[in-house]
Amino acid sequence: MVRSRAGDIAQSEIRRNNLSRMLSELHLRGSLTRSELAASLRLNRSTVASLIAELAARGLVWERLRDKPAPQPTPGRPSPVVEICREGPAALALELSTDWIRAAVIGLGACVAVSVRKDLSLASSTPEQALDEAHDLVGSMLGRLDHGPRLAAIGVSAPGAVRAEDGYVYNAPNLGWRDVPLGSLIRSRFSDLGVPVFVGNDADLAACAEHMRGSGRGTADFICLWGEGGIGAGIVVGGRSLSGAAGYAGEVGHMTVDPDGAQCHCGSHGCWETKVGEEALLRRSGRDPNGGSAAVADLLEAAERGESGALAAMAESGRWLGIGIAGLVNVFNPSRVALGGLYARINPYARQALEHELGRRAMPAPGAMVELTTASLGADALLLGAAELALAPILRNPAIVPLSGDATVIISRRRARPPSYGWTLAPAEARR
Amino acid sequence: MVRSRAGDIAQSEIRRNNLSRMLSELHLRGSLTRSELAASLRLNRSTVASLIAELAARGLVWERLRDKPAPQPTPGRPSPVVEICREGPAALALELSTDWIRAAVIGLGACVAVSVRKDLSLASSTPEQALDEAHDLVGSMLGRLDHGPRLAAIGVSAPGAVRAEDGYVYNAPNLGWRDVPLGSLIRSRFSDLGVPVFVGNDADLAACAEHMRGSGRGTADFICLWGEGGIGAGIVVGGRSLSGAAGYAGEVGHMTVDPDGAQCHCGSHGCWETKVGEEALLRRSGRDPNGGSAAVADLLEAAERGESGALAAMAESGRWLGIGIAGLVNVFNPSRVALGGLYARINPYARQALEHELGRRAMPAPGAMVELTTASLGADALLLGAAELALAPILRNPAIVPLSGDATVIISRRRARPPSYGWTLAPAEARR
Repeated sequence: MVRSRAGDIAQSEIRRNNLSRMLSELHLRGSLTRSELAASLRLNRSTVASLIAELAARGLVWERLRDKPAPQPTPGRPSPVVEICREGPAALALELSTDWIRAAVIGLGACVAVSVRKDLSLASSTPEQALDEAHDLVGSMLGRLDHGPRLAAIGVSAPGAVRAEDGYVYNAPNLGWRDVPLGSLIRSRFSDLGVPVFVGNDADLAACAEHMRGSGRGTADFICLWGEGGIGAGIVVGGRSLSGAAGYAGEVGHMTVDPDGAQCHCGSHGCWETKVGEEALLRRSGRDPNGGSAAVADLLEAAERGESGALAAMAESGRWLGIGIAGLVNVFNPSRVALGGLYARINPYARQALEHELGRRAMPAPGAMVELTTASLGADALLLGAAELALAPILRNPAIVPLSGDATVIISRRRARPPSYGWTLAPAEARR
Repeated sequence: MVRSRAGDIAQSEIRRNNLSRMLSELHLRGSLTRSELAASLRLNRSTVASLIAELAARGLVWERLRDKPAPQPTPGRPSPVVEICREGPAALALELSTDWIRAAVIGLGACVAVSVRKDLSLASSTPEQALDEAHDLVGSMLGRLDHGPRLAAIGVSAPGAVRAEDGYVYNAPNLGWRDVPLGSLIRSRFSDLGVPVFVGNDADLAACAEHMRGSGRGTADFICLWGEGGIGAGIVVGGRSLSGAAGYAGEVGHMTVDPDGAQCHCGSHGCWETKVGEEALLRRSGRDPNGGSAAVADLLEAAERGESGALAAMAESGRWLGIGIAGLVNVFNPSRVALGGLYARINPYARQALEHELGRRAMPAPGAMVELTTASLGADALLLGAAELALAPILRNPAIVPLSGDATVIISRRRARPPSYGWTLAPAEARR
C-alpha cells in the first residue's frame, strides 16, 4: 500500500500526541502498569510498549517491578510499573515574592529534588538586584546536589501581570515594579544555565498546581481562586485548562461587579479584584492597603483575638467573594471551587458571609451541586506551578528531549537505580 | 494474540467515538471526500472506509461522485464525496414563542425538509391549548411531505428556564407559565409519533445553532449572546461547547453586575439580565416591560425615527451589554462574540455605548483581539438549535440508528437518488 505524505504527517502527529498523553498521564498519576496505561489512553498493548520504549530512550520514564505486591495478587508473573524517571529533565522553579525568594529543582511527576529560600524584601530591590540574589541562591542550591540535574527550563512565579510570550511584567504593585522585561533579564542573568525561561503570574501558577495535584485533582470542572495580591484563577472545563484564544483567559478578577466602584489597577472601575483583593481587605480593616503579607498576618491575629473590626473586614471580603463565585458557578457549573492563598487564610472568618451570598445568588441546580473547599498544596503551589509552566513544552511534545543513548528499560524486583535525588520537601522546610 | 475483555471494550468505544466524529464532521461540513475525512479525523483510509460503510448501512450517509469536477482536476479517477443522506433520520423541531408557533422537519446536516408557522398569542393559552395548536400544525405539515420522514426525536424551543433532563419549565415569564411539565405534556400530546422529546431554552438553542452554523462557525473560542426575553449564551471553549459538570453552564445572565440592583426572576439581585433583558429595555423606554415583541418592534420604530427616549434606552442597554461582555472577554478570551436575537436588533443603536464600555473594561490583550459581530442565522436559529438538541443522541452514538437493511453505497456521476425532500427555507418564509 502506498501511503500518502499527508498520511505520514497524520501518523507522526498521532504518535507525538500519544507520547504526550502517556507522559502526561505518568506525570500526573505516578506509577501505572502497562495495562492501566492501555486502558486509560485507549491504546492497544503493542502501541503502549512502543511508546514506553521511546519515552525510556529519551530518559523520561523507566519500568520496574512493584516494590510491594498488589493488594489482590493475580496469577501469573507480576506486572511491572512504568514511572517517571527521576533523573530525567527537571525545571528550575523560582518564586519571587514580596518578602522572599524561593528556588527548587522539580522534575516531571512534581518530584522536588531540592528547595531553598531566602528572606528579603523585594519591594526595596531593583529587578536586577533581586535577580542577583536569586542567582546566588540557585548557585548554592545546585551545589548541594550530588550531581547536576538535567535542567530543561526555568519557570518563574512573579507577583504581577505578566505577558505569557516573553515574561514581560506590566505591573507588580506589591514590588513597585512597572514595565519590567523580567523574562529577558532572567535569560541574561541565568545565561550560564543556557535554558529557556518562562514567567507566569503567581496566583495563576498556584491555581494550575492546585488543579493538577491539589484540591482540583480528579475533577473535570473545577475553579481555583487564588488570592495573592490580586486574584488568580485556574479554571478547568471538561478536564482541560481554560486558556482562551491566545492564553489570556481566566482574568476573573476583572469581571465588573460594581460598575461605579473604585478604580482598579487595570484602569476599569469596580472590578471584582477591587472588592476581594488584599488591598481592599487591608483598607477595610483600617490597615495600610500596601502593607503586604505582614499586614495580613497582623489582621489574621486580630481576627483570632476576636477583634470586631478585623472580623467585619473579613466578612465583607467573604460577601464579595460569594457574589463573584456565584457568577462563576452560574457561568461554569463547576463541581468544585477551591480557595487558595489569601482566601484559604481568611476562609474561617469569611466563609459564613461567602456561603450566604453564594446561596442567594447561585442558580438552584449548579448551586446545590458545587463543593466549596480550600486549596491543599499550601505555599508549595507557587513553585509547583512554576515547574509545570517550565515543563509544559516537554509534556506537549516529549520528542524534544534528545535520545539519551541509553534505551534500556530497567526491570528488577528492587529499585535498580535508587534516585540520586528525589526527596520531597522536608516538613520543616515546607512550613517555613 | 489473546485480547482482553477490557481491550474489546476499549476497541468498541473507539469505534463508537470514530463513528460519532465522522458523522458530526459531515453534519457540520457537508460533503467531504474520503481523503478529506481521513485527514480531518486523523484516521487511515481503511478505517475511514469501514466507518462510511457502517454509517451508510444505518442510512445516515451516502457516497456519490461530485456533480462538478474539482477546481484543480487531479489525474486518476474522480474522488467520490460522502454526504449526509437526506432520507436519514430527522428531527421534528418546534418553536414555541410568545406570538407564534413554528414547526419544521430538519435532518442531519441542518437540512430543512419543510417548515410552517402559525401566528397566535401563546400568552393567552394554557400549555395544553398551545400543544393542541402545535399538534394540528405538525399534522398538516407532515401531510405536505411526499412520504413520511424518519422522525427520530422532537426538539422544542421554549422561552423560559428549562430543566434539561425532562423538559420541565420552571418559569416562562413571557407566556405566564410557571412549573409546567412541558416535556411530559408534549410526550403525551405527540404520543402518535412515538419518539423522544427534548426541550431547551430558546436563547440557548439559538446560540448553539449560531456556534455550529452561523457567526461562530470555525472559531474555537466563541461566545454567542442571544437576547430573547432573558439572555442565552452559547459558549465554546477550545472548540467544545461549555456545559459544566451537569449541563447547567452558560447562565451568563445571572452574573451579578450590581449587587444592590433590582430583584431578578431567579431570586438574586442585580443580575446582568436585570440590566440587559427585554424587560429592562422596555421599562427604560417608558413602555410596558411585559409588552413582548410588539413593544420591542414599537421601540425599534421609535429609534429609527430618532426619538431620543428610545435611543437613550438602547444606549443604556448597550452600556450594560459592554460591562458584562468585558467581563466575559476577560474570563474567556474569545476570538469572537456574536450578538443575536434582541441584541442583533438593537445593535445599530446600542453598539457605540457597548464598544465604549468594552474598551474601558476589557483587559488590553484579550480586548484588542476580540471580534464583535452579530448573529447570522436570523430567526431560523431557534428551530435549527431545537433540531440540534433532538439529533444530538444520534451524533453522539450513530449506532443507535438501526441498520436499514440497505447497505449499498451508491456511486454515480449524477445524483442517483434525488432527495425527495430537501429544499431549504424559501426566502419569503425565512423572512416571515
